[in-house]
Amino acid sequence: MTGFNTPLKIAGGIALTSLLLALPALGQDAPAEAVVEVTAGGEASAQTQYILNSFLMLFGGILVFWMAAGFAMLEAGFVRTKNVSMQLLKNITMYSLACFAYYLIGYMIMYPGDGWLIDGVFGAIGIAVLEPVGLAAEAADLTYATVSSDFFFQVMFCATAASIVSGTVAERIKLLPFLIFVAVLTALVYPIQASWKWGGGFLDQMGFLDFAGSTVVHSVGGWAALAGALVLGARKGKYNPDGTVRAIPGSNMPLAVLGMFILWMGWYGFNGASQLAMGTVGDIADVGRVMANTNAGAIGGALAAAVLTAVMYKKVDLTFVINGALAGLVSVTAEPLTPGLGMASLIGAVGGAIVVFSVPLLDRFKIDDVVGAIPVHLLAGIWGTIAVVLSNPDANIGVQLLAIFAVGVFVFVISLVVWLILKATMGLRPSEEDEDLGLDVVEVGVEAYPEFK
Amino acid sequence: MTGFNTPLKIAGGIALTSLLLALPALGQDAPAEAVVEVTAGGEASAQTQYILNSFLMLFGGILVFWMAAGFAMLEAGFVRTKNVSMQLLKNITMYSLACFAYYLIGYMIMYPGDGWLIDGVFGAIGIAVLEPVGLAAEAADLTYATVSSDFFFQVMFCATAASIVSGTVAERIKLLPFLIFVAVLTALVYPIQASWKWGGGFLDQMGFLDFAGSTVVHSVGGWAALAGALVLGARKGKYNPDGTVRAIPGSNMPLAVLGMFILWMGWYGFNGASQLAMGTVGDIADVGRVMANTNAGAIGGALAAAVLTAVMYKKVDLTFVINGALAGLVSVTAEPLTPGLGMASLIGAVGGAIVVFSVPLLDRFKIDDVVGAIPVHLLAGIWGTIAVVLSNPDANIGVQLLAIFAVGVFVFVISLVVWLILKATMGLRPSEEDEDLGLDVVEVGVEAYPEFK
Amino acid sequence: MTGFNTPLKIAGGIALTSLLLALPALGQDAPAEAVVEVTAGGEASAQTQYILNSFLMLFGGILVFWMAAGFAMLEAGFVRTKNVSMQLLKNITMYSLACFAYYLIGYMIMYPGDGWLIDGVFGAIGIAVLEPVGLAAEAADLTYATVSSDFFFQVMFCATAASIVSGTVAERIKLLPFLIFVAVLTALVYPIQASWKWGGGFLDQMGFLDFAGSTVVHSVGGWAALAGALVLGARKGKYNPDGTVRAIPGSNMPLAVLGMFILWMGWYGFNGASQLAMGTVGDIADVGRVMANTNAGAIGGALAAAVLTAVMYKKVDLTFVINGALAGLVSVTAEPLTPGLGMASLIGAVGGAIVVFSVPLLDRFKIDDVVGAIPVHLLAGIWGTIAVVLSNPDANIGVQLLAIFAVGVFVFVISLVVWLILKATMGLRPSEEDEDLGLDVVEVGVEAYPEFK
Repeated sequence: MTGFNTPLKIAGGIALTSLLLALPALGQDAPAEAVVEVTAGGEASAQTQYILNSFLMLFGGILVFWMAAGFAMLEAGFVRTKNVSMQLLKNITMYSLACFAYYLIGYMIMYPGDGWLIDGVFGAIGIAVLEPVGLAAEAADLTYATVSSDFFFQVMFCATAASIVSGTVAERIKLLPFLIFVAVLTALVYPIQASWKWGGGFLDQMGFLDFAGSTVVHSVGGWAALAGALVLGARKGKYNPDGTVRAIPGSNMPLAVLGMFILWMGWYGFNGASQLAMGTVGDIADVGRVMANTNAGAIGGALAAAVLTAVMYKKVDLTFVINGALAGLVSVTAEPLTPGLGMASLIGAVGGAIVVFSVPLLDRFKIDDVVGAIPVHLLAGIWGTIAVVLSNPDANIGVQLLAIFAVGVFVFVISLVVWLILKATMGLRPSEEDEDLGLDVVEVGVEAYPEFK
Repeated sequence: MTGFNTPLKIAGGIALTSLLLALPALGQDAPAEAVVEVTAGGEASAQTQYILNSFLMLFGGILVFWMAAGFAMLEAGFVRTKNVSMQLLKNITMYSLACFAYYLIGYMIMYPGDGWLIDGVFGAIGIAVLEPVGLAAEAADLTYATVSSDFFFQVMFCATAASIVSGTVAERIKLLPFLIFVAVLTALVYPIQASWKWGGGFLDQMGFLDFAGSTVVHSVGGWAALAGALVLGARKGKYNPDGTVRAIPGSNMPLAVLGMFILWMGWYGFNGASQLAMGTVGDIADVGRVMANTNAGAIGGALAAAVLTAVMYKKVDLTFVINGALAGLVSVTAEPLTPGLGMASLIGAVGGAIVVFSVPLLDRFKIDDVVGAIPVHLLAGIWGTIAVVLSNPDANIGVQLLAIFAVGVFVFVISLVVWLILKATMGLRPSEEDEDLGLDVVEVGVEAYPEFK
Repeated sequence: MTGFNTPLKIAGGIALTSLLLALPALGQDAPAEAVVEVTAGGEASAQTQYILNSFLMLFGGILVFWMAAGFAMLEAGFVRTKNVSMQLLKNITMYSLACFAYYLIGYMIMYPGDGWLIDGVFGAIGIAVLEPVGLAAEAADLTYATVSSDFFFQVMFCATAASIVSGTVAERIKLLPFLIFVAVLTALVYPIQASWKWGGGFLDQMGFLDFAGSTVVHSVGGWAALAGALVLGARKGKYNPDGTVRAIPGSNMPLAVLGMFILWMGWYGFNGASQLAMGTVGDIADVGRVMANTNAGAIGGALAAAVLTAVMYKKVDLTFVINGALAGLVSVTAEPLTPGLGMASLIGAVGGAIVVFSVPLLDRFKIDDVVGAIPVHLLAGIWGTIAVVLSNPDANIGVQLLAIFAVGVFVFVISLVVWLILKATMGLRPSEEDEDLGLDVVEVGVEAYPEFK
């Protein structure tokens, strides 16, 4: 039969060739069913995966953008009416500046590829460049996602880190020095430390785990805010000379709650799209896990704050419940994938408890944090980073602590220096008279509620 | 020619085998175009479909989550300033508790699979468990979607049912009994009756049709709210001793309108993702139909309410237009797929008309429904469930009515009993003095607008 | 060897046939990996592309719907408290009416297919009809997207054009004539001119480029608003007899900022989904480019307005920053794809500058534009349409200008005529007394903030 072998091989080769040549026609002419089944049960094609991954990040980016509105509403609700326009203005300009700074320098520092200036520690210098219009499939790295979706997603994270700061230092800082600080934070400080983990830097190489950024994003904003609060000092009248604390209630609770809901919604993108892929069965299932756990963390934080304030103060304090939910969200951000729903709720609940117990503590140290960003983003962020070890067997508690420490020292020290330089040069605070008048009249010239007096 | 037959068959077999062996290489080496066309014109692969279905439900779940914010804003806008913080607090804690109760017990009751305790009537007991991290394609049921996306979507529906209640009973109920009621509603009442349809229970077997839950979700909230309003009684001062009604205007119309827009937006997910699939041409076209019809229903309801109030009262009442749009949405929820755009608008318009005519009716019976949730969710929900027969030939009017009746009796009776037990044991209402002061001061300790007086 | 030729061809044919017959079984029986690789590296199948394209437009449609809420909040924040309910009511009813008019007549005028009444100038008459339930793949035009997703996306654009008008003419127009104008605008004016470009009409044939509608949507709303402002005249008290301008501050800045953020968010869908496809690597990369550039345009506009008002007025005017961001968005809308991030920022910055310089200019001509819609949507829209030539080599400045002119004359003249007819017949303005009282009391009967006095 060997005599047939060669001709048959040829036959096979020709069959194959003719099949390939016939394929384009097959797509149109052959009965659809017969063709279809080639992939039935099979994976999505590489291009489909690439498209799905990219879309996930665009979708997530829009949701994280939406968090900018959440911070604006939360903070506008928590400050006094005389500083509301200023707080809104700060949020818009800060977001805009953060995006611009990240485009100009931050993105390349954070994702240097192979172009590190100092390997693992300091990335590359350059502006962000998207792929050309109408990217060809052959030119794409099909194993990840489009550069444009990556940039769009990451620029929103950078802006989020900056947003955290503005709430803490509200009602007593001038616009210009605040914006200069934001420029430094978003062009350099955030991207440098983010490159340590997400750019493949030394923390990543050591095995540090931080899924969506309890440390990389939230604690960074928190450390910068803490430094700012220390340098700025408290609002006039917040702490009485006898050491007691004067509560300064927020002016608009529906706005604050709206802000919380917006942030909560945005967090599904913040955490969910940090899976960075949904082109496979495993990835889409994981995205779902992440979103369900994100919700579980938030409800854990809200319920814990509600129960604790009910027990401690006999009233269920709305502001603590708002911040409890947010702290729950921050807490599950470092590891929203591996815990079960119950564990995620518990991790969030501890975050909520941290808020309830640490707010009075900050007041004891006369650290005036107008919206509670330090408990929510810094303390719950640290807790969340540690809590990774509860459910992820790949986590190492030593490495987690080292990363918390490294990022903390780096961000806090630089922030402190920048705040101090700004204080020494242009000054941070408006005059006491201006602070009394409110920054809306003094710096913005637009009152938030001119008819409500 | 038969002599050639066997060798040629062998040739074919070898060709086939060599093709299969060559395929992995083809993906990389062969000109992309030739390979591509294998699926051109073909269906999405099973895994791609599974991914798309799952993503649709995650996307929808986020939008339905967003409805929680919508209810919070709507209700905060419709109550008086002295009860705004309380209403906000109720919405956050209620949502959180609903999610937790659904996770602990509700989900398994609703979707018992084959594990019914009482077949078709009472599901299984157990907590919700998501699939493992990094689900393998082989382990997935590729005909539906991920468990995590399903859970995420369904938990939001459960929370929605609870959200409906809080608006009706606003301004005169204490926090704790309200939350206990919510826990019963979301752990047991909602999931049990939802299992009758969506869990494959007896209503489903009888052919009851309720696409996204005019009955299963909205009427459930409505019945529970009606029972609550009856047991609670009206707000102090709502009905004068001479039988006349005292209008108690809502404190913040922009908030109420914002709430309406949020709910409207969320409804695209509520109805659209209830298609549960978008992996085929037919499914994605249907999702589009559903979303377009959902919008048509809403505009029908808004326009009907605008025209009717203009004719009846010579003014176009904004609160009726808000509730008209929402009633239009509820009305098309039972069948947003089969009607044309005109029919969907008409179904919504009837819903809007129901609101305009039934609000005064409720007042005649001294049923004090603060936000109008009973007309919007219960009455329009019943109408929508009946209206399925107008466009869906598979609908049976008898079965639709039976389902409305069965769900109504079940939910209303249990709700009534629970409300009465709560009233008898811990009491539902604050003291008259506290009601006058407002619940924000009494129970929350945080005023909504401390500077606006 | 020719003797073998024929039998081998037959062998090939049989091999091919047997492969096709074997394919269904292959899907299930063959090792998954071997089968999968057929499409590895290959494109998404035609049906997958169709699904992805359709989903993009549904996703985008939801985001553009959300812009209706953005306009409502923006305008509610920019008017005085006594006209807030009216402004909200106008936004809901106008949106609803626009959707209904577009369904009844506008959609077919805009997309006549081959059924033009006047070729390239006036489309077809008819209502919008979606595809049947459960559309079969064979019946679908797989090269584009579902009719339902297209309708859903486009109806939102039409409503957007109408939304632009209501802000300009706020506080001094009666509800009914306003709604009649909206009906004409959305049933006829918008669709006719939109067909010139997006329906394949004469402007499209000439090579006019307007990616997402700086001219086709935004300038249309702007021209109609300008005509309205001219016919209506200014609000009572806006311009003093001595020619000076009386600033009338908006009543609620957080609402206005919320509106801006909502619009900004919605714009990712407005521009991003105007790519109309994401089923290929090139398309998803382009969608990402568009979204990143949309954001770049917005931040450019916001920062330019902030810097310019700081320099010119020594205060950073929040209202200008809000409108600067929106003008930046309008500016990049005509071409959000081809510019780089830096160029997109610059185009947006010029838009922001236009707002800062043109608002005083309008006041000099006593054109009272309550929310600044004319600078934002008309002037920045014209600028954006011209700016296409900066980055897109296919753009022709002459054609761009001609399109601006053609659309402008058409929309402005018809709008002027309609406004004048309405003024002559039913009257546009309430009495001076009613204007003083505020339209909420007079026409709506519902005060926006009844307790805040």
